[in-house]
Amino acid sequence: MVLRYIACRVAYEGSRFHGSQLQQNAPSVQGALENAIEKVCCHPVRIILAGRTDAGVHALGQCFRFATESSLPVRRVSQALNANLDKSVRVWEAREVDESFHPRFSALSRTYRYWIENAFPGNVLLAHTATSCHEQLDLGAMQQAAERLVGRHDFVAFQSAGSPAPNTVRCVQRLQLRRIHDVLGSSLIEIEIEADAFLYRMVRNIVGMLMAVGKGSLMPSDVTKLMQSKDRQLCPRPAPSQGLCLMDVKYNWDSYEPRA
Amino acid sequence: MVLRYIACRVAYEGSRFHGSQLQQNAPSVQGALENAIEKVCCHPVRIILAGRTDAGVHALGQCFRFATESSLPVRRVSQALNANLDKSVRVWEAREVDESFHPRFSALSRTYRYWIENAFPGNVLLAHTATSCHEQLDLGAMQQAAERLVGRHDFVAFQSAGSPAPNTVRCVQRLQLRRIHDVLGSSLIEIEIEADAFLYRMVRNIVGMLMAVGKGSLMPSDVTKLMQSKDRQLCPRPAPSQGLCLMDVKYNWDSYEPRA
Repeated sequence: MVLRYIACRVAYEGSRFHGSQLQQNAPSVQGALENAIEKVCCHPVRIILAGRTDAGVHALGQCFRFATESSLPVRRVSQALNANLDKSVRVWEAREVDESFHPRFSALSRTYRYWIENAFPGNVLLAHTATSCHEQLDLGAMQQAAERLVGRHDFVAFQSAGSPAPNTVRCVQRLQLRRIHDVLGSSLIEIEIEADAFLYRMVRNIVGMLMAVGKGSLMPSDVTKLMQSKDRQLCPRPAPSQGLCLMDVKYNWDSYEPRA
Repeated sequence: MVLRYIACRVAYEGSRFHGSQLQQNAPSVQGALENAIEKVCCHPVRIILAGRTDAGVHALGQCFRFATESSLPVRRVSQALNANLDKSVRVWEAREVDESFHPRFSALSRTYRYWIENAFPGNVLLAHTATSCHEQLDLGAMQQAAERLVGRHDFVAFQSAGSPAPNTVRCVQRLQLRRIHDVLGSSLIEIEIEADAFLYRMVRNIVGMLMAVGKGSLMPSDVTKLMQSKDRQLCPRPAPSQGLCLMDVKYNWDSYEPRA
């Protein structure tokens, strides 16, 4: 009996789940995926996800891995799993990897996007995918604040309580803001952030701070002060979960090719 | 006692309702709005909508009118109604009109948009707002077909059975197709159509035909043949409801100012 390791890419609509992690009495992404794999592979299974996402947070490029004794061809995995999943979860890629591949520890970087609808009233078609902000936001000031976060810093002031990391230094490779038009009849502010890894609720805390700068209640220079203070009590409230989406997790796939 | 007439603009997420029209045992947009008005105005009410939308069809610029004895200032109407409505329905404008204003018969034109996601797999964030089409669509051919529909024509071949109009000549003022990028991580084909009025399911039948042209199963010139045939049996299947959105209904508001 040969044990094979399958890595999959998955998208989900986060408003349908109480987060990505398995829960006893509430629908979770992990629970839905494990149920589908068990039906297809005919044995109990435990998946490992690249990153934990809170209730309401979406993903288009989440990654997970499972081990199986099934001989199902890898090219059939996506279709077989999707046939056993609700439409709010879609597996869109599957590949065989060697056992050294770990969705979390093998990741080179993660990319998130956050969507803000800066208009009144909120567009009903974006109620679950964008955060509605009625106050006018100064995009230029937000961009100035964002520049101060790029690079290698101690982001402990942007970490929410509940899941402390022993090392809180992270490298933000990219933090870009832009206005995009014609999104289902609205225009949005899109914030894209890529880093080697993120602390607990770091993206939502960063977006919350950028929104405070956009409203004028903080100055762009306050970002540096906040980072240097290392005091999470000084950080504005995290932005709501529903505007956030895990877009991509990067890997060096060539390193994890299974031996023939 | 003075009877006042209030015209409102409303947006709704159509997947939450079994259509716009009042139904006995299923949630409808009309039912939700009438309940909210009755709570705010403290008397039974019947609204008139500008246009009927099927289950799953969205609206950002639907219009409705009601008569009331309430003295609620018109500037408070949107907020008061929204406080009694689910987040999937938002009233975003209210104005007083004279009794000659009729949402349907006073309309100068209607504008709809239809969103097609032309990629595999469908984006989970657009599952209720765009139609997913896995086959490659030829946008140029679709545009050539669309041009043949602009103008004053008998559109009877594009009318679905069930709600026949005595006169089936309509004037399509605009029918534009374009690709829009960066829509919640996807790119979409957007079809915008404006006409004086529409026959039953005319937009979905037109989009169904344009998709058939895009896939190559019909030629652009077949559109003219289909229109001239006046035979709805020859029309391809209507496009699904969930990609369709009523964007706007135009009125000459100045003609309906209430007398002081």
